[in-house]
Amino acid sequence: MSQIYARVALIGLGLIAGSMGLAMRRAGLAGEIVGTARSAETRAVALERGLVDRVTETAAEAVAGADLVVLAVPVGVMGELAAEIADHLAPGATVTDVGSVKQAVVAAVGPHVPEGVHFVPGHPLAGTEHSGPHSGFAELFRNRFTLLIAEDDTDPSAVDRLTRLWQGMGANVEVMDAPHHDLVLAVTSHTPHLIAYTMVGVADDMRRVTDQEVIKYSAAGFRDFTRIAASDPTMWRDVFLTNKEATLEILGRFTEELFALQRAIRTGDGSHLFDYFTRTRAIRRGIIEAGQDTDAPDFGRGGAKT
Amino acid sequence: MSQIYARVALIGLGLIAGSMGLAMRRAGLAGEIVGTARSAETRAVALERGLVDRVTETAAEAVAGADLVVLAVPVGVMGELAAEIADHLAPGATVTDVGSVKQAVVAAVGPHVPEGVHFVPGHPLAGTEHSGPHSGFAELFRNRFTLLIAEDDTDPSAVDRLTRLWQGMGANVEVMDAPHHDLVLAVTSHTPHLIAYTMVGVADDMRRVTDQEVIKYSAAGFRDFTRIAASDPTMWRDVFLTNKEATLEILGRFTEELFALQRAIRTGDGSHLFDYFTRTRAIRRGIIEAGQDTDAPDFGRGGAKT
Repeated sequence: MSQIYARVALIGLGLIAGSMGLAMRRAGLAGEIVGTARSAETRAVALERGLVDRVTETAAEAVAGADLVVLAVPVGVMGELAAEIADHLAPGATVTDVGSVKQAVVAAVGPHVPEGVHFVPGHPLAGTEHSGPHSGFAELFRNRFTLLIAEDDTDPSAVDRLTRLWQGMGANVEVMDAPHHDLVLAVTSHTPHLIAYTMVGVADDMRRVTDQEVIKYSAAGFRDFTRIAASDPTMWRDVFLTNKEATLEILGRFTEELFALQRAIRTGDGSHLFDYFTRTRAIRRGIIEAGQDTDAPDFGRGGAKT
Repeated sequence: MSQIYARVALIGLGLIAGSMGLAMRRAGLAGEIVGTARSAETRAVALERGLVDRVTETAAEAVAGADLVVLAVPVGVMGELAAEIADHLAPGATVTDVGSVKQAVVAAVGPHVPEGVHFVPGHPLAGTEHSGPHSGFAELFRNRFTLLIAEDDTDPSAVDRLTRLWQGMGANVEVMDAPHHDLVLAVTSHTPHLIAYTMVGVADDMRRVTDQEVIKYSAAGFRDFTRIAASDPTMWRDVFLTNKEATLEILGRFTEELFALQRAIRTGDGSHLFDYFTRTRAIRRGIIEAGQDTDAPDFGRGGAKT
């Protein structure tokens, strides 16, 4: 594959940025990849693992001369970071990010992006429950979706170039606006994460059921919740603080449905339960047909081909 | 491994019974395995796949002369089935089951078990989202827990013999009483399933987010919920109708916690969210250390070694 950007700057070197570095290097998508992170240890690991070609101590140094700048830090500090690099961005460069919410990033970063620099927010729908510079791998984005945000005044050629970069890393790309992104993600990601965190917290609190029992018997369904609920706490705190409206809306719908099922249990309304459980099977089939999961029975021994 | 029962009767030939048949045959744990199911097609598939040595049309025929009878039908029909086979059970035989709730099974089946026949309810904590005679495989129970229920008057030698059978199929066995079983499973399985069903139902209902979007973007967290929510509707209806008290108790605790997190989101209480999300990570580590899951990043491409 041919080079798409001459120099890419990765700000933050966690799971997503590290995987991007490995994927870009493998496919030859960038002339040079420069990385930075606040922790000297993280920078050292990134160099050692070959996530980037070189590291810098500051974000300002990293972005100098880069034609693509990737903000890969928690959503809560994106605005601050944007202010810090604003004066150092090269004319014609593109700034993107990988945050899980988009309206808040647009609001925090947008005002700092100088005239003549493109801003194309992004969100790769890929991840694992691991975080940090040791966790990335080149295959992370393969056959996953990356959502890019374009407004009416976004330069189509900047969107197109970034699209080709993500495709080169194996992703399918879709373009949408920020409010729709945040609603879709509230349904497919943010609310499910909050619910999983809640359920795991409840289990941890039950004094009549020991932690040991919860752990031993997790294969009965709970295990998938613990995987979701093991994700990076900082990232998820910021997601809920910054996608508040959509998350609260979906939570309201969730609670309403849950109460209806709870009442069906209490009153012994088996046909309500059966009909509800039958309907949800169809969605699962759709996901398998769309290639977003396999039909193989998963009982926790699989493990990805990394 | 040596034979433990001379003749095993499997009543119902779905995922669990089918896997038991394959696991017992592979390890030589039973002299003969007889199976039955209401559907002629299911019986034919069971024979063709070698889940059993022979099939019978009725449960009464299947249990004749068997020293182990396994009730592997939905919890809601266990009582009826027990009444049907009661007069045909061999003296000294053991009756067990594989239902997901235990107090209701004890109440429904217990009264029909004749004097001189042992009743040792059981519950293998293993499964996939698939069901039916095509879904079983011999490895299903490997390194999973099977819980057996013993009351004060249960014959220890009958429990010991059934324990060795399950161990021969690869399972770890624990013995407990029925009320504790039902509480533990309400936490580790029943409530998580109800929540997953609810979340998938909510997603299906959102008119502003299309089904296609839900399916395409499921890798962001929702996918694990759909796997759980694709399980057999009949089985799960019966679980909730028969483990009502414990499920409603855990649901109450869940709702309480969820409302506290919801308030933290609404008021922007980031430290509450961060602390909560940090605590749940420890449970995940415990599960990995206990061998009930792998640390490999799971992004839906794994698939078990079947």
